[in-house]
Amino acid sequence: MKAYVLFSGGKDCSLSSLILEPYFDVQLVTFNFGILPTGEVAKQIADELGFPHMVIQPPMEILETAAEIVKKDGFPNGAINYIHRQVLEILAKTEGVELIADGLRRDDRVPHLEHSEIQSFEDRYKILYCSPLMGFGRFTINKMLESNLVITEEESAVILKCDYEAELREYLYRDIGEEETHKHFPKSHKQSRVISRIRKQ
Amino acid sequence: MKAYVLFSGGKDCSLSSLILEPYFDVQLVTFNFGILPTGEVAKQIADELGFPHMVIQPPMEILETAAEIVKKDGFPNGAINYIHRQVLEILAKTEGVELIADGLRRDDRVPHLEHSEIQSFEDRYKILYCSPLMGFGRFTINKMLESNLVITEEESAVILKCDYEAELREYLYRDIGEEETHKHFPKSHKQSRVISRIRKQ
Repeated sequence: MKAYVLFSGGKDCSLSSLILEPYFDVQLVTFNFGILPTGEVAKQIADELGFPHMVIQPPMEILETAAEIVKKDGFPNGAINYIHRQVLEILAKTEGVELIADGLRRDDRVPHLEHSEIQSFEDRYKILYCSPLMGFGRFTINKMLESNLVITEEESAVILKCDYEAELREYLYRDIGEEETHKHFPKSHKQSRVISRIRKQ
Repeated sequence: MKAYVLFSGGKDCSLSSLILEPYFDVQLVTFNFGILPTGEVAKQIADELGFPHMVIQPPMEILETAAEIVKKDGFPNGAINYIHRQVLEILAKTEGVELIADGLRRDDRVPHLEHSEIQSFEDRYKILYCSPLMGFGRFTINKMLESNLVITEEESAVILKCDYEAELREYLYRDIGEEETHKHFPKSHKQSRVISRIRKQ
C-alpha cells in the first residue's frame, strides 16, 4: 500500500517517512502555491532521503483565506490549521490515495486535529490517516533523528522550508509588508531542514 | 539508548517494538503479579520476536486496589487505567531506565493518558515516554501487521494474554466468583496474541 506523506523537508515529516518505510511504499507530497520555489527544495531533500516526490498546487484561494485569518487573529495558528485541513482534503480526494500521513508530533499545538475530526475525515473520504510521530515527544524524536538524519535548524524567516508558513509569510509580505507581517508571527521560531540521510552500513 | 517496552504479547505492543527497533535497543518488560503464568507466555512471544525480555513483579496491593475499583465502578476501565499508571511509575523508578514505551493506540479509550499527565510523568522521573502507535488508527495498524506478524484473536476470557486484564479477572474470580466478575467486564472483547514474526528475506 502507498503512503502519501505530507512533506515540508523538515525533520518531523522526514522521520515520519522513515518510520513508515518498512510497512508502506512512501510517496512524498509537497503542496506549493506557486509563490516560493518550495517544491524544488523539497524535491532535493526527497532525493536525499530516497523517496519519490510529487508537488500539488492547491487553489490560491486557500492561501488568501489563510492570510485573512492571520490578519484577523493577529497570529498564524488558525491559518496554519486551516491550510493543513484544506491540504488533507485535497489529498484525500486525489485519485488512488488510500493512506495519508503527516509529521505532527505529540507536543505540536498547531496543526492539531481532534480525535473526532480524524474519524470524520477517514470516514468521509474512505481513507486512512496517520501521524507516525503523534506518540513521541521532542526529546525522543531527537534521539531517533541522531542516527538517521543530518539536520540544520534556523529561524523560520531565514531558512527556506517547504511548509505552509513559508509561502504564507511571503504572501503577507507582498500584501501588508514585512514589518506588519512580523508582528503577526512569533519572534523566535526554529525550523528544521534535512541535509542528508545517514545510511546504515 | 535502551527502550523499555511494556509487553503483553499482544499485537499492539509487539508492533510498537518493531517500530522502535531501528532506533533503540528494545527491551521488553512484562508486569506479572504472580497469579497467572503470564510472564512465561510473554517470554515465549518475546523470543519469537527476537527481543530480550524481563518480568517485574509489582506489589500485590496494586491488583487489590484495582479489583476494588472494578467492584466500585462496575466496569474495568478505571482499574486498567490505574494499573497502567502504577506500572509506568514502577518502571520509571527502575535503575537504568531512560525511555519507556507502551502499545497504546489512537483509538484506545483505556488506558489513556492526557498530554499534561505525560509531561508531568516525564518531568517527575526525568525519563522519556512514548506510545509509537498513538498516531495510528486500527485499520492502518492492521495493514502494518499483515506483512510483519502472524497473530491470533480470541475472546479475553479464552486466550491467555499477558496484559493486566488477565490477572485482574483471575483475581476477581477468586474474590467474588466467575459469574459476578463477568458482570463487570464487557461481553465481547477480542484480544490478540502474536504467534510469529514474519522475517523479511
